Amino acid sequence: MSFDRLIKKIAETQNPTVAGLDPKLDFIPDHIKENAYMVYGKTLEGAAEALFEFNKGLIDALCDIVPAVKPQAAYYEMYGWHGVHALRKTIEYAKSKGMFVITDGKRNDIGTTMTAYAKAHLGITDIEGESVEAFGSDALTVNAYLGTDGVKPVIDVCKEYDKGLFVLVKTSNPSSGELQDRILDDGLTVYRTMGNMCETWGNDLMGEYGYSGVGAVVGATYPKQLGELRKALSHTFFLVPGYGAQGGGAADVAPAFDENGLGAVINSSRGIMCAWKKEQNIDTKDYALAARNEAVRMRDEIISYIGKIKL
Amino acid sequence: MSFDRLIKKIAETQNPTVAGLDPKLDFIPDHIKENAYMVYGKTLEGAAEALFEFNKGLIDALCDIVPAVKPQAAYYEMYGWHGVHALRKTIEYAKSKGMFVITDGKRNDIGTTMTAYAKAHLGITDIEGESVEAFGSDALTVNAYLGTDGVKPVIDVCKEYDKGLFVLVKTSNPSSGELQDRILDDGLTVYRTMGNMCETWGNDLMGEYGYSGVGAVVGATYPKQLGELRKALSHTFFLVPGYGAQGGGAADVAPAFDENGLGAVINSSRGIMCAWKKEQNIDTKDYALAARNEAVRMRDEIISYIGKIKL
Repeated sequence: MSFDRLIKKIAETQNPTVAGLDPKLDFIPDHIKENAYMVYGKTLEGAAEALFEFNKGLIDALCDIVPAVKPQAAYYEMYGWHGVHALRKTIEYAKSKGMFVITDGKRNDIGTTMTAYAKAHLGITDIEGESVEAFGSDALTVNAYLGTDGVKPVIDVCKEYDKGLFVLVKTSNPSSGELQDRILDDGLTVYRTMGNMCETWGNDLMGEYGYSGVGAVVGATYPKQLGELRKALSHTFFLVPGYGAQGGGAADVAPAFDENGLGAVINSSRGIMCAWKKEQNIDTKDYALAARNEAVRMRDEIISYIGKIKL
Repeated sequence: MSFDRLIKKIAETQNPTVAGLDPKLDFIPDHIKENAYMVYGKTLEGAAEALFEFNKGLIDALCDIVPAVKPQAAYYEMYGWHGVHALRKTIEYAKSKGMFVITDGKRNDIGTTMTAYAKAHLGITDIEGESVEAFGSDALTVNAYLGTDGVKPVIDVCKEYDKGLFVLVKTSNPSSGELQDRILDDGLTVYRTMGNMCETWGNDLMGEYGYSGVGAVVGATYPKQLGELRKALSHTFFLVPGYGAQGGGAADVAPAFDENGLGAVINSSRGIMCAWKKEQNIDTKDYALAARNEAVRMRDEIISYIGKIKL
C-alpha cells in the first residue's frame, strides 16, 4: 500500500531509474520484426509479437541493474487487442524477472468506472467468484482532473493489493503550463494545488520510508518546479519523465531527490530503447546490450549528482 | 473532420441521445453468461464473450432509433486483452449497424504518444506499409490537463479520418469542482477556461452545422454550468453524461441544446442497459426490448423539452 517495494528495489540496485517500454516498430531491430512477420504476417498480431520479443530482450538485459519498467499503454493499444495482449505479457515477464512495473496509462474516470480501471491494471477481476488478474501491474499513472472521485477508487485498490499510483502534477511537455501553471485565486498554481492534493490523498497509503503510495508525475524539463515540489510535498514520491530525448539532464533531475537520494524515479524511454541506433557497426542482435550500457551510464550520471542512496 | 455525421444521424432519428455500453457482468442476463461460460469457462475470455453478446443484443435493438453508442473502455480493460477484443468487436458491430461510436477512454498524453492513442482509437496503424484499423471508433473522449500538446495530435488524426473528440470540461461527478470550479487569476473557472480552449482548438475542425469536431464533456448534474457553457461555446458540441442513474433529468439537460435542438448528445448507460432489471415477470431474453423501451421513453422525454430537431 505504498511505494516501499519500489524504494527497496531502488536502494538494492543503487539506481533510481525506470526504463520506459514504448516500443514503436521503428525502435525494433529488423531481425526481431522479420521473425514475427514470418509467423504472423504484417498484421497487428505480427507487430504485437515483435513488441513483446523486443521487450523481453530489454528486460533480460536490464533486470539486475534497473529496478523498474514503465510500459506506455498507447504504444500497445496502437496494435489493437493483440498489442494489449503484448502489454499483458510484458508486465508478466518483467514481474517474473523481479522488476517493479508502472503502467503509464494516465487513466481517469469516476466511481465504479475508475474502480474498473484500478482492478484492471492493479487489482483482481472477479468473474462469478473466480479471481483473475487482468494486467497485474504494480503502479498506474492517473490523471486527476476529475478530483477525488477519480482517485479514491484507485487508492482503495492499492490498499488492498499493495500497489501505488502516480498522479499527473506538472508534466514534461512544452504546453503543460497552459493549465498547470495558471494561478488560482488563493495564489497557488494549478500544479501545486494538484501536488497538495497528492499529499492529502497519500495520508491513506503511507509507507515505512516516509513516502506514500500516491506519487506525482513531475517533468525533468521543469527543474525549478521539480525542486519547489520536492520541498513542498515531503511524502510524495515522484515519477520524472523528460530525461534524455526530451531534453532533461542529470543536473535537471537532481532537485527531485531528498537528502538520502530517495523520493524519485527517473524515466528514460527512447534513450534506452534506441541506444543501439547510436552505435556504429553494431550487430543489431546486441540492441539489448546497448540498452544496458546506456542504463549504466544514466545510473552513474544520476548517482554522481545525488550520491549513495540510503534507506 | 467534425461531428457532422453524428449530427445528421441525430436529426434523422430525431433522437439526441447515446447509449452507454458499460457492461458489468451484473448487468448481463444469466442466459448470456451461462452460454459464454459453457464454452470458455469462468475466465476473462468467457466474460468477454458475454459482454459482446450482451452488447450485440442491445445494438440490434437500438440501432434504428438511437444514433450512437458509447462503450466505456474501463469495463472492457477489466477483462484484460480478451475484454479489449470485445471492445473492438463491439465497435465493429455497432458501425456495421450504422451507429456512430464514441469510445469513452478519457485518453491523454503528449506528442507521438498521443498520436499513438489517436491512431489506435480513431485512425489507422501502419505496419511496414500495411494499413490496419486497430479499434476504428468515430470519436474519443480526451482529458486535456496536459494542454495543447495532448490535443493537437488527436485533431490531426481527426482531420485525416473525419473523426471527432470530446474534451473533459465540467464532469458530472460530485468532486468535479475540486479543480474544475476553481477560479483562475483572470476570474474564469478552470472548466470555463478548458471550454474556451475547446472553442480555439475547434477552429481547425469546423463542420457544416456550426459545430466543430472538438466537443466537450459537460455533466447533466450541473445544469447551470451546462447553460453557461452552451451560451459561451457556440461551436462546441456537448457530450452530456449523468442523465438517469447519476441524477440528471430531461429538464437538467435541456440547457445543453441550441434553439434548433442541436449542440448536444445525452448519454444514458445503466438506465438503458439495466432497464430489464426494473421490469417484473420479464423473460430475461427480452432484456434488449426493455432497453429499447427505455431508449424510446428517454428520447420522447428529451424531445418534449427541446422540440423538433432542425438541421
